[in-house]
Amino acid sequence: MSLFGFSLKARRPKSAQTAKDRLQLLLAHERSAGSETPDYLPQLQYDLIAVIRKYMNVSDDDVEIKMERDDDVSSLEINIEMPATSKARPAKR
Amino acid sequence: MSLFGFSLKARRPKSAQTAKDRLQLLLAHERSAGSETPDYLPQLQYDLIAVIRKYMNVSDDDVEIKMERDDDVSSLEINIEMPATSKARPAKR
Repeated sequence: MSLFGFSLKARRPKSAQTAKDRLQLLLAHERSAGSETPDYLPQLQYDLIAVIRKYMNVSDDDVEIKMERDDDVSSLEINIEMPATSKARPAKR
Repeated sequence: MSLFGFSLKARRPKSAQTAKDRLQLLLAHERSAGSETPDYLPQLQYDLIAVIRKYMNVSDDDVEIKMERDDDVSSLEINIEMPATSKARPAKR
């Protein structure tokens, strides 16, 4: 079920692409009208990246972040690209 | 930039909906051909929900999880719905 417009469709990589692992994380927070919930996304993004770093070695250069905010929807997009073999080892937990 | 087919388009809630805050998290891990990277998503999902719980009170009943896996793409969808005012207070950090 897609709550507010996200869709999960995998796109095949082009055959000529170099071997990279990609991780994409999308987060959307929809506040209902009159909600007093603050917008957590700016803080959440740091914690989410820290969690991902527990599992794989990710340098700052590998991470691309986009955040969008309007009155009732905040969205966060984190894209991480890593060489498939050399760096994509499990990080020490 | 959408790396492999995710799109971030907010859909307006129907006016008759009850006041709920919604949080949707989508994660996709695309392993390139020949990559030795293991599939981290089953472990990651617990850590991601734990991070979200640092920011808002979320009961197990509020959380809906879908995971899909094929040879080179694993995707995880976490949907959380909460009453906008009563429970959506910041959790103790």
